Amino acid sequence: MPDQVPDDGLTTRERRRRPALIVNTGDGKGKSTAAFGTALRAWHQGWSIGVFQFLKSSSWRSGERAAFEALDAVHRESGTGGPVTWVADGLGFTWTTRGSDLDTQAEIAHATWQHVRAQLVDQKHRLYVLDEFTYALERGWVDTDEVLQALAERPGTQHVIITGRRAPQTLCDLATTVTEMTAVKHPFEAGQKGQAGIEW
Amino acid sequence: MPDQVPDDGLTTRERRRRPALIVNTGDGKGKSTAAFGTALRAWHQGWSIGVFQFLKSSSWRSGERAAFEALDAVHRESGTGGPVTWVADGLGFTWTTRGSDLDTQAEIAHATWQHVRAQLVDQKHRLYVLDEFTYALERGWVDTDEVLQALAERPGTQHVIITGRRAPQTLCDLATTVTEMTAVKHPFEAGQKGQAGIEW
Repeated sequence: MPDQVPDDGLTTRERRRRPALIVNTGDGKGKSTAAFGTALRAWHQGWSIGVFQFLKSSSWRSGERAAFEALDAVHRESGTGGPVTWVADGLGFTWTTRGSDLDTQAEIAHATWQHVRAQLVDQKHRLYVLDEFTYALERGWVDTDEVLQALAERPGTQHVIITGRRAPQTLCDLATTVTEMTAVKHPFEAGQKGQAGIEW
Repeated sequence: MPDQVPDDGLTTRERRRRPALIVNTGDGKGKSTAAFGTALRAWHQGWSIGVFQFLKSSSWRSGERAAFEALDAVHRESGTGGPVTWVADGLGFTWTTRGSDLDTQAEIAHATWQHVRAQLVDQKHRLYVLDEFTYALERGWVDTDEVLQALAERPGTQHVIITGRRAPQTLCDLATTVTEMTAVKHPFEAGQKGQAGIEW
């Protein structure tokens, strides 16, 4: 139950149905996995889900992608759950990479965002996952003011989850939910490398 | 890449394959959804997954459960991914509930843990999700020392994810990864109630 009822002129029903803008940020793990865990709930509700990856490497999100492709197939074959569209246009790089393909990365991120923006106007999906989107904002590949305006003006009931470190304060101000994931203990500190099934 | 290589006598290969004990704690959102997002990766690897819920209400994890039951069916029908077993023996209550069924809740949590403990000895699953398990520890329904011993002595390569607020320090000491989820902004503060597709 809410701690208090705000004086915003909305009914409880309207407030409850307010489209969610969820930001998962911080240096710890779980930003993207929590987004995909929430997407499982959306799938169960039969919602149309669009996942947009703004960073990519060879193994990046491959497990999640395979699982959601399987869930999309379940939807197409049996009508259970909702449809899932997965867009991974990024090049193979990590967020520490510097290289000659930077302009291309910027161009792909920019084009992916323009695609998302058009889909928001068309109310294409009920849930959007903009995975690692904060890096595109941070590097200026996507204009933050344009993003804020598109999100603030999105019509209907379209929920959006944005993940990545260092989410800008203006985005957090607009969000309905902001969670910071903090690494209390990280396996890489103990010399452990990432492993299949856990890290991807 | 790791920051440093520890002097623990293990090869890189052994260290990389060290079974993960992941604790998702803190007052923010994303503890359980991150666990289920990670379980998608495990499913994709074809691992056997056991999910054990230590708290339950009518809508509790219903979206995640439906999705993983669909993924389990995909595995059975096509061999893709891994098998998923979902155990939800808890009664319908929230962690603020006080009532006459408390002994029964304690008994169910205790029995569920004994089931998990036996499965760890038998190496039944490659990944265990002990959802909201910290509450069972906090209330003494399950003996923390017994849990620590069972986890420390688990044979083979069995990964375990434990979720819930106020994870005990001894558990964090044993863990390979500890992440704290902190609520920077929470929708309930703004008078918003939980909604299907996002909160369950």
